[in-house]
Amino acid sequence: METGGSSESSVEPKKGKSKTRRKPKESVLKQKSPAEFFAENKNIAGFDNPGKCLYTTVRELVENALDSAESISELPVVEITIEEIERSEFNSMIGLVDRERVDEALYDDYESAKAREKRLAKEARNQEIQAKNALLGKKTKEPTPVKGIKGRGEASFYRVTCKDNGKGMPHDDIPNMFGRVLSGTKYGLKQTRGKFGLGAKMALIWSKMSTGLPIEISSSMKAQNYISFCRLDIDIHRNIPHIHLHEKQENKERWHGAKIQVVIEGNWTTYRAKILHYMRQMAVITPYAQLLFKFISDASDKNMTIKFARRTDSMPPVPLETKHHPSSVDLLLIKRLIAETSKQNLLQFLQHEFVNIGKSYAERLIGEMGPDFSPKMAVKSLTDQQIVRIHQLFRQAKFDDPSGKCLSPAGEYNLRLGIIKELHPDLVSTYSGSAQVFEGHPFIVEAGVSIGGKDVKLGINIFRFANRIPLLFEQGADVVTRTAIKRINWSSYKISQWQDKIGVFVSVVSTKIPFKGTGKEYIGDDISEIASAVKSAIQQCCTQLKTKIVKKIQAREQQERKRRLSWWTTKWH
Amino acid sequence: METGGSSESSVEPKKGKSKTRRKPKESVLKQKSPAEFFAENKNIAGFDNPGKCLYTTVRELVENALDSAESISELPVVEITIEEIERSEFNSMIGLVDRERVDEALYDDYESAKAREKRLAKEARNQEIQAKNALLGKKTKEPTPVKGIKGRGEASFYRVTCKDNGKGMPHDDIPNMFGRVLSGTKYGLKQTRGKFGLGAKMALIWSKMSTGLPIEISSSMKAQNYISFCRLDIDIHRNIPHIHLHEKQENKERWHGAKIQVVIEGNWTTYRAKILHYMRQMAVITPYAQLLFKFISDASDKNMTIKFARRTDSMPPVPLETKHHPSSVDLLLIKRLIAETSKQNLLQFLQHEFVNIGKSYAERLIGEMGPDFSPKMAVKSLTDQQIVRIHQLFRQAKFDDPSGKCLSPAGEYNLRLGIIKELHPDLVSTYSGSAQVFEGHPFIVEAGVSIGGKDVKLGINIFRFANRIPLLFEQGADVVTRTAIKRINWSSYKISQWQDKIGVFVSVVSTKIPFKGTGKEYIGDDISEIASAVKSAIQQCCTQLKTKIVKKIQAREQQERKRRLSWWTTKWH
Repeated sequence: METGGSSESSVEPKKGKSKTRRKPKESVLKQKSPAEFFAENKNIAGFDNPGKCLYTTVRELVENALDSAESISELPVVEITIEEIERSEFNSMIGLVDRERVDEALYDDYESAKAREKRLAKEARNQEIQAKNALLGKKTKEPTPVKGIKGRGEASFYRVTCKDNGKGMPHDDIPNMFGRVLSGTKYGLKQTRGKFGLGAKMALIWSKMSTGLPIEISSSMKAQNYISFCRLDIDIHRNIPHIHLHEKQENKERWHGAKIQVVIEGNWTTYRAKILHYMRQMAVITPYAQLLFKFISDASDKNMTIKFARRTDSMPPVPLETKHHPSSVDLLLIKRLIAETSKQNLLQFLQHEFVNIGKSYAERLIGEMGPDFSPKMAVKSLTDQQIVRIHQLFRQAKFDDPSGKCLSPAGEYNLRLGIIKELHPDLVSTYSGSAQVFEGHPFIVEAGVSIGGKDVKLGINIFRFANRIPLLFEQGADVVTRTAIKRINWSSYKISQWQDKIGVFVSVVSTKIPFKGTGKEYIGDDISEIASAVKSAIQQCCTQLKTKIVKKIQAREQQERKRRLSWWTTKWH
Repeated sequence: METGGSSESSVEPKKGKSKTRRKPKESVLKQKSPAEFFAENKNIAGFDNPGKCLYTTVRELVENALDSAESISELPVVEITIEEIERSEFNSMIGLVDRERVDEALYDDYESAKAREKRLAKEARNQEIQAKNALLGKKTKEPTPVKGIKGRGEASFYRVTCKDNGKGMPHDDIPNMFGRVLSGTKYGLKQTRGKFGLGAKMALIWSKMSTGLPIEISSSMKAQNYISFCRLDIDIHRNIPHIHLHEKQENKERWHGAKIQVVIEGNWTTYRAKILHYMRQMAVITPYAQLLFKFISDASDKNMTIKFARRTDSMPPVPLETKHHPSSVDLLLIKRLIAETSKQNLLQFLQHEFVNIGKSYAERLIGEMGPDFSPKMAVKSLTDQQIVRIHQLFRQAKFDDPSGKCLSPAGEYNLRLGIIKELHPDLVSTYSGSAQVFEGHPFIVEAGVSIGGKDVKLGINIFRFANRIPLLFEQGADVVTRTAIKRINWSSYKISQWQDKIGVFVSVVSTKIPFKGTGKEYIGDDISEIASAVKSAIQQCCTQLKTKIVKKIQAREQQERKRRLSWWTTKWH
């Protein structure tokens, strides 16, 4: 038995020894560009490994495409194509002569003559056993695969192309929109699909890391008589676009939209299922879009084309940019708003740069700030102390909740349609909550619950959406999963978690989705306003379903009674 | 029953309507600075909410302090103090006059006269019931707290100070080290405690957002006759330091080290336990450091001072910067190495910029690259295609595994000492694995298993360390948790998951910790090399423990037998 003994204190310090053995290099202060930071921490944006890189590239391109079409109120038509590129094809693309191996023993997958002999013998034995068993009509377990040639070295390359009918981009902005990290147009306060505003830039950085090939962009804006074409990559160290070609081409058909093409390393085998799930869930939440997904390879049996047809012309309204709610701003943001405002005095500033501060309320607030403040004082002359005073008052004062008018929920009608179109359930109910608020941010929760359907597993199947994009990872900790599994008493609605195929669909939209963790893949369970809104929305759906289920049971029982009655009548009359 | 009907297709599109109702603003291309990005996505660096901000500030400062002392092979002495600051004190600090409320009805916590009456009545009733029960000697449940005044508006402020005996910083570098995001010295390839190299900069950004107060730094390097003092904040928009004061002060005592002080909003109540866990776990893995933790507030009953004493002078060696392994590099990195190398030709480049490529192997590799390559060719003249060729060969060729010499594991001795000193277990065993490799990165796994002890719960208690820092969040998905819970057959080692207090300690060090997700709070379960090393390390500990447990049982049985024998002897003789 050992306890926290003090005998160890007599041990010789190893310090001296390590000092002479190791001399650390002098450290030098270096500056990194944002592009370099994201290249080194690409998992922040969902680029963890080649498979996930392929998945995230697809979703970033699809989401940009949908945003773009919706921003001009155009019903989205999005085509996404993944083409598998063989190594030799890839090499010829970049002008590299495909070389045969010469010095075989250099390679990681090199098998010595002896190892090869052994492997072949084992394979032959396995075949014999199988043949024997087949003769005897015995079913055998699949023989354990023989460890043959490892595939570590063989990268898979893909050309990903996404074409939309959206807004397009101004000719001169294109290089910066793709080739400069932290440059973008989505930085206002509104409901947005994007997570970090990195999007296609990360795909470009990944192509740079894995294939070295540039991105190609074609784009045209409405009524523009030319198509902008741009081929570029990114100078990671300086975080600036490196343009190969940027020209205007003819636009005879008056096409508008964008087409983005990027060649990256990926892994279709491991992320095939995730990509298809993503497309299907996107089709559920976006039934007004026409989505075409294609996979093309040399092995034609792997090829696929999936069309998610448009089923409605009814599109959610465009999310609107809104002003900040006074309860939601921090010191830094107040300072930025002061720096950027066009208003002259404090009264105008409070009234026009925030929601839910009317003129008379602004005057009361200014009165409460103290004698140093007056409605007419120049807002740009506020001292740091005065700004802290405003911030403190903002946090303590009462303001009306922000309205949800700037939000763009999927709509109960669309959600229902999406569920029906993709799952073909036996029963479905939907519910759309009214706008609510947490920490000054408006949000809306919509939900659907379905029973039965195509490709639905027994038990609870969760479909999560945040600002109308599907969330596929880190499901366990999400507020929707936890609520559905722990806080809904399914049996009280005549629904069985063990015998029914239950689909639970919850969509949250907000100017600020309170993602937990940093992958932005799930919504935390710790914001009570959202947790209770989710619970109540699911319960509303369940209550609707219960009525239908009870009716169904009664109908069945009645039929049963009739059948028995008619049997009795036949028998005795 | 509703099925996927086609009747819905006749629905009127709402498109036209939404178009006229909403006119989205023209979007403008904006450029964001890295500092702005992290201010808006501060959860990436663990600054999710005020409570977690306090926690992360503490850990960043402590880890920087340890790194700094270790870098000069000095036994670390680190003092961390959290002082709670009352609002009125905070206001007087920033020169803001504390004002009484005038317009009471403005405030969020305003209680109307009627509401107040009701609340007081309820409180009185509760007190009565309690008094009655007390008289009757009945134990009553704590009465449900009466919903009184909400505390939303009341922020809590803290002054966090961390002092070390480390290396200090060069006078002129200080402003950039704190006031410029993505600037730092830890960017070489080596085992490092830092996660993103953001560290204290995020604390400064958070102070800027929550209190507006600058950071204060005192620092002196060894044998420097002055102390650098710097008070600064950060210009978020330009990502440059904004210096208030930067001067040299007397250094009579020839002190060396750094002292950082920052005033931030926080939440001690909710993160107290996490902060103390963190300190305790840090003491386990760093028994050669002396850590002093203090909490100071006006409510003296909340105050605490905890000293984690040094128990050994034996310090792990300093982690060394190493070269990249050819299996671990991507295209971008090869290009960067080419741009930065001082070597002239390809042969020298391969030989000197990577580990495990000797001269003759470099020659064979160059031969295999093809006729366009030669050992003497200028490395800076390589074309993009040629670099792709090198990259492909690097991925396919075989290289010796990197050695773990550059790593700095805690050491079995230190781990054992840390466990004993902090937990006082009944039994403990430790194991230190040899260096292994995944994807070209060397790693070492060390483990400890303890039975019994102070403040240890029944069942399995997991302590995880990555590059010698404790990991406290997202435990469920971590490779250590999964291995300990699912893959160790505890009972086969005579250990009971239900009756024993089991401590499982696993420390992984590597030049690249394969964190999963983006919070860098857990190591994924998907890297088989690490998973199997973790399992085997825990098993080794268990095997050692089993021997001890069996001996203990035998000893007990023997004693029992003796007792019975003596009883029998006494009785009959």
